[in-house]
Amino acid sequence: MSTPARKPDTQAVQSADPHAHLAGLTKAAASFVAKHRFEDLNDETLRIARRCVLDGLAVALAGSEQPGMAPLGAYIDSLGGTPQARLIGYASRKVPAHLAALWSATAGHAMDWDDTQLAEGPGRPYGLLMHPTMPPLVAALTMADLVAGETGTPVDGKTFLTSFTAGFEVGCKIAEAINPDHYMRGFHTSGTIGTFAAAAAAAKMLGMNEEDVAKTLGVAASMASGIRAGFGTMTKPMHVGRAAENGITAALLVRHGFSANPEALDGRWGYLAIAGPGGEPALVNHKFGKPHTMESPGVSIKPYPSGVLTHPSMDALLFLMRENGLEAKDVQSVKLKAGSNVLGPIRFRIARTELEGKFSFAFLLTAIILAGRAGKAEFTDEFVSSAASQDMQARIETEFDQSIEDMGWDRIRSKIEVTTTDGRVIERWADENYRGSPHNPLSDTELEGKFRDCAEGLIDEARMQRVFDTVWSLENSTDVGAIFDLLDWNATR
Amino acid sequence: MSTPARKPDTQAVQSADPHAHLAGLTKAAASFVAKHRFEDLNDETLRIARRCVLDGLAVALAGSEQPGMAPLGAYIDSLGGTPQARLIGYASRKVPAHLAALWSATAGHAMDWDDTQLAEGPGRPYGLLMHPTMPPLVAALTMADLVAGETGTPVDGKTFLTSFTAGFEVGCKIAEAINPDHYMRGFHTSGTIGTFAAAAAAAKMLGMNEEDVAKTLGVAASMASGIRAGFGTMTKPMHVGRAAENGITAALLVRHGFSANPEALDGRWGYLAIAGPGGEPALVNHKFGKPHTMESPGVSIKPYPSGVLTHPSMDALLFLMRENGLEAKDVQSVKLKAGSNVLGPIRFRIARTELEGKFSFAFLLTAIILAGRAGKAEFTDEFVSSAASQDMQARIETEFDQSIEDMGWDRIRSKIEVTTTDGRVIERWADENYRGSPHNPLSDTELEGKFRDCAEGLIDEARMQRVFDTVWSLENSTDVGAIFDLLDWNATR
Repeated sequence: MSTPARKPDTQAVQSADPHAHLAGLTKAAASFVAKHRFEDLNDETLRIARRCVLDGLAVALAGSEQPGMAPLGAYIDSLGGTPQARLIGYASRKVPAHLAALWSATAGHAMDWDDTQLAEGPGRPYGLLMHPTMPPLVAALTMADLVAGETGTPVDGKTFLTSFTAGFEVGCKIAEAINPDHYMRGFHTSGTIGTFAAAAAAAKMLGMNEEDVAKTLGVAASMASGIRAGFGTMTKPMHVGRAAENGITAALLVRHGFSANPEALDGRWGYLAIAGPGGEPALVNHKFGKPHTMESPGVSIKPYPSGVLTHPSMDALLFLMRENGLEAKDVQSVKLKAGSNVLGPIRFRIARTELEGKFSFAFLLTAIILAGRAGKAEFTDEFVSSAASQDMQARIETEFDQSIEDMGWDRIRSKIEVTTTDGRVIERWADENYRGSPHNPLSDTELEGKFRDCAEGLIDEARMQRVFDTVWSLENSTDVGAIFDLLDWNATR
Repeated sequence: MSTPARKPDTQAVQSADPHAHLAGLTKAAASFVAKHRFEDLNDETLRIARRCVLDGLAVALAGSEQPGMAPLGAYIDSLGGTPQARLIGYASRKVPAHLAALWSATAGHAMDWDDTQLAEGPGRPYGLLMHPTMPPLVAALTMADLVAGETGTPVDGKTFLTSFTAGFEVGCKIAEAINPDHYMRGFHTSGTIGTFAAAAAAAKMLGMNEEDVAKTLGVAASMASGIRAGFGTMTKPMHVGRAAENGITAALLVRHGFSANPEALDGRWGYLAIAGPGGEPALVNHKFGKPHTMESPGVSIKPYPSGVLTHPSMDALLFLMRENGLEAKDVQSVKLKAGSNVLGPIRFRIARTELEGKFSFAFLLTAIILAGRAGKAEFTDEFVSSAASQDMQARIETEFDQSIEDMGWDRIRSKIEVTTTDGRVIERWADENYRGSPHNPLSDTELEGKFRDCAEGLIDEARMQRVFDTVWSLENSTDVGAIFDLLDWNATR
C-alpha cells in the first residue's frame, strides 16, 4: 500500500474561483507604497497636495478647540506614556504616537470640514467616498515626529509629502475599489478605509519594504471600523481619529515583528469581500499614482463645515439672496428640492446642537440666511440653539423631487425656492459645478481665507502667514515638525 | 401667509419601518448591565462562571509565553504610560488599562484554546459564534485593577463575577441576535461582538447607569473589528486582544464625557443592520440573564487548542486507536469525512507552523497519532514542522461527505477511517455529544488537568493549587487582583 500523493497546500484552491476578481489589491497597494518617491509627484499633484495639507491643518486647528476634544484630551492625559509625538494645537503635549494621532485626526474631523474624495466609476456615488486627507496627513505628521525623536534628525518636507501622498492615494484607490454598498449600508468610509490610508502613510514614513507594507495593511484590515450610527455625536470625528491611530498601531506592530495576512484586502476572505461586500479592484489595480486621485478625478475642498452634498444648496441660497437683495427679515420660508443622494444622509429635521446642525438642512440654510455665511462662528451650540435660528429652521423644509432623482447621482443637484415675506416665490438651481469642486475650486486666496476663519482667535496673523509660507513651499522644509509649533495656540495664550 | 407647521424631528420616521425588527437591542443590553446584581446569579450559572474563569485564566497563562506575544510586548513596552493594570503572566508590568487588556486577551486567544458559545436558534450554525469568556474576563479583571488603584480598595470576587457575567451575557446575546452571515461572510465574531462583551464588563466595573452603558456600547459599535483573513497569523489572537482593549477604551471615553449614539446596535443604522447584515433581536431582547447563555444553551470548554469543530474528530481518532490498540507505527493513512460546517473553516492542507496547525486536520490528527494528545507541547513550531509530523500529515486527508452534509449543521458530525499498515480499514463515528460540550462536559478535575498542562513549566504545583482554591470560591475573594500575582510566572524565574 503506497503513501497517498501530496495534496495542494490549501483547500481553498478552486478551478473557478468566484472571488478571482477580488485579487491583487493588497499587492498593488503595497508595491506602490514601497516604490513611491517624491520625484514621482508631478507639479500638479504636488500643488494639490500642498493645498490639501493647508486645508487639513486649518480644519484640525479649528477642531482642536471643539467641545468634543475635552473628554478625549482628558482620557489621553490619564494614560501618560512615552513622549513620541506632539498634538496639533498643543505642541507642549507629547504623547505616544497612536494617541497623538487619535487626538489630531479627531480634531481634523471634528467640524466635518475636511476635504472629500471624488469618485471615478459611473456606479460610484459622487461625493460619498472618503474624507481623504486627514488620516494620512495626521499619520505622516505624527510618525515624522516619532522618527525625528528616534533618529535625532528632523524629517524634511519631501519625505513628509511622499508619505502623505502614498497614504492619500492608497486610501482613495481602496475606497474606489470597494463596493459603494460599504458606505451606503452604513460603514463610515473615512474611518474604515481611512485606516488603510493611515497605515500606508505610517509604513512609508518608517521606510518599509513591500512585504512589511502588505503586512501593515493586513493588521489594518483587522482594525478598520466605524459605522454611521455615530453621526451627530462625538463618535463620528473619533472614527477618523481611530483611523489614524489604528494605521500607526498596525505599522508599529509590524515593525516589532507582528505577523499578518499579506493579502488581507483580497479574495474570499479579504476586507473587500467581507465589508463591501465585494468590489472592483480591476478599476484601480494598475492605476496607483497613474494619475494620483488627488489630481484626477480630484478632491473637493469644503467652503462650509458640513457634508459636501449640502454645499451647492447653501451656495444657491447665498447667491439667490445676493442677487435679489434679500435680507433675513425678507425670508418667509424656504423649500429645498432634491433627490435621495442629497436628502438621504441628512438626518435631523430641526437641529438643536452644533453636531446635529451638520446634518440638518434647516440649520445649514438658516446660517446662510441669518449670517450670510456658515463658518466656525455659526457652528456652535449657542448659534444653532438661538431663538432666531430655531424660528428660521421651523420655516425651512426639504422635499424629495422625482424629476431631480431621475437625473442620476453622478452630480449633486438641487433647487432652492424662497417665499418672501411680501409674497414672492423665487427659485434658483444649485450649480452642479459647486464651489470647492475640482471644476470650480477654491482659489489659494480663498483657501487662506478658510484657514483664517479656522485660526480666528487662536493664532495671530503673523503666525498664519508663517504657516502659509511653510506649506506653499513644503518641499523645501528641512523640518516638518515645525508645523506643530506654528499651530500651537495653547502656547500663545 | 402662515408659518408652515412644525415637522417631525427626523426624516427617518416612517409609517412602515423596514428595520423595526432591529429595534431595542441596545436598550435591552444596557438595562440588563445596569441592573445586573451578583444576587441574580443562580447556583448553576455561578458554578459555570467559575469554570469559565478557571479555563480562561489557564489559556491566558499558556498564551502569555507564546512566540507571538514578544512583538506585542515590545510594542507595549515602547509606549510606557500610567501604571493602571497588571498583565496576566507578568504582574510586575503595570501599564495603561487598554494596553494591559490588549496583552492579556491576546494571550488568552493565542492558543485558540478558549471556550466556545453555543447557538440557540435553529438557523444559527452550531459552534460558530463567539469565544465568549476572554473579552469580558480580561476587561473585568483589568478594570478591577484600575478601580482598585483609583479607589485604594481592592475589588472583591462578587463585584468581579457580576462584571464578568454581565459582559459574557451581553456578548453572547448580541452574537445570537446578529445574522450568522456576519461570521460566515468573514467577520471574526470574537473580535467584533467581543468588543461589546468587553465594553459591557468594563462599564459594569465602573458602575455605570443604563444611559452610560448604552453610550459605551455606542462607542464600541464604532470600534468593533476583526476579519478572518487574519487566521493563521498573530493577527487572529489580536482580534480578541483588541476586543478587550476597545471595550475598555469605549467605557473610559464615556466616563470622560464622550458622546455616542445610545441605540447603536439598532435599526437602519445600527451595527446589526450594517455588519450582519440584519439579525433577530427578538430572539434575545427579553432574555438577557433569563437564563444566562452560559447556563443554557451553554458553553463548550475545549480539551484541545483548536477550533471546537475539530474536537469530535480528534477524540474519535483517539478512541479508535485506544479501542483497537493501535500505535503511531500502525497507522498507514487516515481519512476524515465530514460536511462543510466542519471542513469549511479549515484552511491548510499541510501545516508547517503551529499557527497553521490549528487550521489543518492533517496536523490535528497527526498530534493525536504521534503523541496521543494535543496540548501545549504539541502546538509548537518545532513539533508541527518535525519530520515525523510532516510525514504523517502527508498521509491524512479530508473528504466532503454529502450524506453527512444532508444531516444538517445543528451538530458537529464526522467519521474517521484509519487504514493500518497491515491493511485493515477501521471506521469510527465521532460523538455528537463531544467532550467539552454542555452534554458531555469536562469534569472539574479534567479542567484542573487542562490548567496543569497550560501552567506546565510556568508555575509550580503549590501555586496551581492556590489558583484552584481561589477560583472555586471566587465569590468569597476579597481581592481578585491576587489572581495577577498567582499567575506571575515571570516573577518565579
